[in-house]
Amino acid sequence: MVSEPKHRPWRVLESEYLSRRPWFTVRRERVELPSGVVVPEWYIFEFPDWVNVIARTEEGRYVMISQYRHAIGETRYELVAGCCEEGETPLESARRELLEETGYGGGRWRQLMVTSPNPTNHTNRCYTFLAEGVRRLDAQHTEPTEEIEVHLMTEAEVRELLADDRILQCLHAAPLWKYFATRPESGRESEPGAHSESELNADR
Amino acid sequence: MVSEPKHRPWRVLESEYLSRRPWFTVRRERVELPSGVVVPEWYIFEFPDWVNVIARTEEGRYVMISQYRHAIGETRYELVAGCCEEGETPLESARRELLEETGYGGGRWRQLMVTSPNPTNHTNRCYTFLAEGVRRLDAQHTEPTEEIEVHLMTEAEVRELLADDRILQCLHAAPLWKYFATRPESGRESEPGAHSESELNADR
Repeated sequence: MVSEPKHRPWRVLESEYLSRRPWFTVRRERVELPSGVVVPEWYIFEFPDWVNVIARTEEGRYVMISQYRHAIGETRYELVAGCCEEGETPLESARRELLEETGYGGGRWRQLMVTSPNPTNHTNRCYTFLAEGVRRLDAQHTEPTEEIEVHLMTEAEVRELLADDRILQCLHAAPLWKYFATRPESGRESEPGAHSESELNADR
Repeated sequence: MVSEPKHRPWRVLESEYLSRRPWFTVRRERVELPSGVVVPEWYIFEFPDWVNVIARTEEGRYVMISQYRHAIGETRYELVAGCCEEGETPLESARRELLEETGYGGGRWRQLMVTSPNPTNHTNRCYTFLAEGVRRLDAQHTEPTEEIEVHLMTEAEVRELLADDRILQCLHAAPLWKYFATRPESGRESEPGAHSESELNADR
């Protein structure tokens, strides 16, 4: 087992909030490194923890979404994702987000991955869940600021988007690559309700 | 081939810079969605493009680093990474960062992946390069604010850290998972200077 790296934390000399708005809570710190070097401005973005979901239906389709992303001015395919609200566990947040954004739920859930959006300047973690055997339970119920299109994709389609870096958001690409790299191949066929790729194509 | 998702861009009604500091250039926008809904505050972080490198030595070791990350208060294993400076291509930035942070260079380079740190609120992209057959060319030359430890790891060690989510930064986990998932296994043995895992262990 690889040992922990040597830990040499910085000392906070001053800390001040510049803003405390939703999606924009920022503090500026004056910090001292173990070497004695002082950095006068280090910016830290405070966000709640985030979640996202790799959701597969009983028929073996992946529940993907597409959404306009204003900072890059592009519309991209993504996983269902969102924020942990006050008092929620990450699993509860992920189930809520999948239901709100797509109407899908149920199935068997497990945590697949935890990442940091950016440990340099983000305080939060992002939790990814794998939800297998989900089904349509309800209509989509999005926020007025969300315009989300749902896409049921085959495994081949998700793999194609991933291979071409078209799942651009790294918080989504990382767990999708991990999922396809570590999933036991044999687990696919033995699952109740799962169909092989050729059976799915025959259903069209 | 999966077609592009339907593109429904937002309209910018007002845009104002709140700060223009290095590592903290932020604008606030008032935007209108295609539905007519107006969002009064959308925060956009402007960063230069970022780069990182999966670097493997002639002996088949991976050039990893560890670094204290102030926003999470932890020290983590990472890839070599940095910012594109004015006038640099991402490849030039990646070569410079590898040399500065570790003293390693040379070898055969290719772009492996491009991601977005977060298309919701980050304008930039992150480019990952694969550098094979690098060797120690120089001493480490870090900034006064960087305290970076270099670790030459076996493939088994990198895979272990990855499987345990100990490569926490998603901008690094995503390309490492992509690399191990897509690399042609046969390519490893045929490379000049590459040794198998057992030969490396025998060298210790």
